[in-house]
This record gives sequence, structure tokens and C-alpha cells, in this order.
Amino acid sequence: MKFKLLNESAEKTFAVVFDKGDEIMWTFRRFVTEQQLLASHFTAIGALSDVVLGFFDPIRKQYKRIPIHEQVEVLSLIGDVTIEQGTIEVHAHIVVGKPDGTAHGGHLLEGHVFPTLELILVESPRYLTRRRDIETGLALIDLKAA
Amino acid sequence: MKFKLLNESAEKTFAVVFDKGDEIMWTFRRFVTEQQLLASHFTAIGALSDVVLGFFDPIRKQYKRIPIHEQVEVLSLIGDVTIEQGTIEVHAHIVVGKPDGTAHGGHLLEGHVFPTLELILVESPRYLTRRRDIETGLALIDLKAA
Amino acid sequence: MKFKLLNESAEKTFAVVFDKGDEIMWTFRRFVTEQQLLASHFTAIGALSDVVLGFFDPIRKQYKRIPIHEQVEVLSLIGDVTIEQGTIEVHAHIVVGKPDGTAHGGHLLEGHVFPTLELILVESPRYLTRRRDIETGLALIDLKAA
Repeated sequence: MKFKLLNESAEKTFAVVFDKGDEIMWTFRRFVTEQQLLASHFTAIGALSDVVLGFFDPIRKQYKRIPIHEQVEVLSLIGDVTIEQGTIEVHAHIVVGKPDGTAHGGHLLEGHVFPTLELILVESPRYLTRRRDIETGLALIDLKAA
Repeated sequence: MKFKLLNESAEKTFAVVFDKGDEIMWTFRRFVTEQQLLASHFTAIGALSDVVLGFFDPIRKQYKRIPIHEQVEVLSLIGDVTIEQGTIEVHAHIVVGKPDGTAHGGHLLEGHVFPTLELILVESPRYLTRRRDIETGLALIDLKAA
Repeated sequence: MKFKLLNESAEKTFAVVFDKGDEIMWTFRRFVTEQQLLASHFTAIGALSDVVLGFFDPIRKQYKRIPIHEQVEVLSLIGDVTIEQGTIEVHAHIVVGKPDGTAHGGHLLEGHVFPTLELILVESPRYLTRRRDIETGLALIDLKAA
């Protein structure tokens, strides 16, 4: 475990409200890129008309896709914003609820908002950098990076 | 998607600890009203003796009630505080865990605390306003509102 | 319900990134103790090679252990840092996702990170104190404590 103090004061807090039909990851990546966000973390709640969850298989070193083709509540969406080789990246995990109240979730690959997604993001005045991990092929946060 | 910068500095952070038997939504709405909270977001963990989850059915335009009549862990409670026509509103989604470890969740309609619910709330010095959406009948956050 | 204003300004934000193989609770308790953290709250996402969930049984007044012996996504990890009789304590609830997308969760007893766990912690410049509750035997946050 390693750690990095991101902020002792001037953080910015954003409310980001998605519109009906917005694809979350595409829309959100455009937002963080346009705003040139530094290290940030966020939480959100709302509802979706469909979603594709991912489960990282450490043997195959790739994400299994788990599509859900129905309306779901977004019970929890937690994630962070980092930088990898000059590109601002979003990493988010989601928990969704079905009409029977059962919860499902995974790495968020894509999903369409209906009718809303209410996201609160806090930006810290530092960078968090990702670097490719040889063993898994994933880009992990590297706190030793400049 | 739209966004609003809520804060660049002076946020307030509250710890709110619920007592045994407190009905979450009633107790929390009283708190946010008495404190006249501005735009806020919160997370909580704890346990409940019962809970009623909601699932918004976009066809019927109403919440289906999903009651759970047993002790559950509160694995995640995420939400926000906004204002709608002069009334301070709480919107919260919950994930609960049953004794077999399965997770369930939805829009939080009601639930009784046992033995505790530990909530951390951050208040920003701005408003977030809700406005009735014609299509769904729900009060959605309207970032264009004054 | 009781509440305590933890902060009106100078909070610290930490990024804590766990290494492959780290046992979460042991590693994190060492971190909060070494850093002598005051009242803090955190969220995290990542993945684990195994985890032991807990469900508090209010009749037996003890945690039932629910071990999961397989790779899971950490969909949500929410918790707080408090002090109990001079010892800094971590309280965390977790939601994990299995390869079929189903969500499971409970009080986090232990779990091993693979390949990463990305945690954001905010420390407030106040204490939150726990005190043993006679009825349940649990150490609950006591906001009336000095």
C-alpha cells in the first residue's frame, strides 16, 4: 500500500447531472477532458435504461461483459479520475438494482441514463497517474510517478 | 449532461449518527430542514431492522415498493440534498446485505435503524434545485434554475 | 439522531492505493495508526482475490462470517475512521461483484487485494469517538463524548 496527500485545502466540488439517453462513460469522459480535471473522485445515484457491467478475469486478463437489457436503479456509482500517458481516464464501479430488489454490479463499461444520474465530483489540486501493469495488463495508479 | 461548480472552498462536513429505532427518511428530512442545508451529498453505513426499497417503473410512472422485513446491513447509502419549490429534499439510494451475504437495494423509501447508522454529509455553499419532469412525473435536478 | 459539525474548512484528502496481496483491514489499520488520523471517511473501488464478509446477528450479538473464496470486483467500499479508548478504528462495509454480475456484501472482516484497491480518504480536524453499547456489545459512535 502506498498513499499520497492530494489536498489540504482548495478542492472543487461539481454537481454533474446527466440527461435522458446520455451514455455515461462517453459523456463523462468528454466532461473530464473538456474540464481538464486533475485527480478527482465521485459518487452518483440515478437510473438507467440499460447497462453493461464488466468483470475482470485475472486468468484471461480481460473484462467479461455482462449486459443488462432492462431498466435499473443506480444504487451506487463510485469512481476516480486519473491520467494515463496524457489522457484523462475515468474508472468507475457500479451497483444496480432490478425490479425484484436484487443488486448486481461490476466495472462500468457502458450504460444509458433514464431519467437521470446525479453525480457529485470532488477535484483535488494534484495528479494521479496510471501506468500499465505487466502481470495483468491493466493500467494501475502509480503513486511513485511524477 | 450539465454541470455546476458547487464549491471551491468552504464546505461543511457533518457526522450524523442515527439512534436505534430512528426512521431514516423522516429523521433525516427533519435534520436537513432544521439545519436549512444547502446542496449536500452524503454516504452512510450501518444496519437496519427493516427497510422498504423503491424501484421506479418508467411505464407506470411510480415506485414499486419492495419491503424487507428482517435485519440487514447497510452496505452503502448514497444521496444528495436539494431544494424543490422551497422544500429541502433528500434523495437516497441504498444497498443492503442479508444474512446469506446477498445484496439488495433500491431507492430508499423508509427504514428503521438498528443499532446504528453512521452518515457523513458534506454541504456546499450553493443550491441545487429540482423541477418536475413532465415525461416521468419525477422531480429532477435542474441546473439551469436560478 | 445526533450530529456533529466536523469541519468548515481545512480537510485533508488522501489517495491510498493498495498493492497486490495486501490484506485490506490489517494494512489500512496500520496506515490510519501511523498517520494518527482524526475523524475520516472514505470510499474505494478495486478487486480482491478473496474476502470475508460479516453480518451482525442482533440476537447472538456477534458477526456471522461469510467467506467468499474467489476473485471479486469491489463495487463499493464505504467507511469511517474513529477512535475507541485511544485506539484508531476502521469501520467499513463492502459490496462485491461475482463473475455472473450478482452483488454480495457485508461488514468487511478481511480481504486480499488483487490487483488493486483505489481508496480516497478525507480527514476532518475533529475526533469521532466510539463507546461500547451495552445492548449489542458493539462500539457505536458517541457524539456526546469529549
